[in-house]
Amino acid sequence: MKDNISGCSVEEAMTVLGGRWRMLIISFLLEKPMRFNELRRAIPNISQRMLTLELRFLEEEGFILREVYAQVPVKVEYSITAEGQKLKKLVNTLQEVGLWLKSR
Amino acid sequence: MKDNISGCSVEEAMTVLGGRWRMLIISFLLEKPMRFNELRRAIPNISQRMLTLELRFLEEEGFILREVYAQVPVKVEYSITAEGQKLKKLVNTLQEVGLWLKSR
Repeated sequence: MKDNISGCSVEEAMTVLGGRWRMLIISFLLEKPMRFNELRRAIPNISQRMLTLELRFLEEEGFILREVYAQVPVKVEYSITAEGQKLKKLVNTLQEVGLWLKSR
Repeated sequence: MKDNISGCSVEEAMTVLGGRWRMLIISFLLEKPMRFNELRRAIPNISQRMLTLELRFLEEEGFILREVYAQVPVKVEYSITAEGQKLKKLVNTLQEVGLWLKSR
């Protein structure tokens, strides 16, 4: 891969952000902060365990923020960070490609 | 998902093109046609079986063309199609994001 820096970058992007769910979660949180159960309803095909793991990954990578509000019942909300905002262009491009793929 | 057409498109794009290897293969073939073994050398981390499966998937989706040249030894070459060319913008965006991710 040494002689293909651009290919190497694509691999890096897909390793971190590939998979079916990560960019989808980012796309929702770019619109507005959401609670766990809101995200589950918005992504009906994802399991509770997978959503938990993906949210934790995105939080560890610094793309989203998890905030716990001390109220009863406790409220846990996820929101996009400044780092996550930098993925907006990729989300837009994926939306265009997805619309094209569905129209084929 | 009914009320989120853009999110739905992101899911479609990631379902078809997500995973670590597909966009990487596309990025190489956008540069020039390549033989199987050339691709293997360019992507050292991929197994022979996985590369075979991913190439077949991309061929079935119409993004790449597989051509067999009747010569000895037989030459099999993969090239990008007009449909595959439409993924150029996504490849460029992934390269930008990948470079950014590596520089963090």
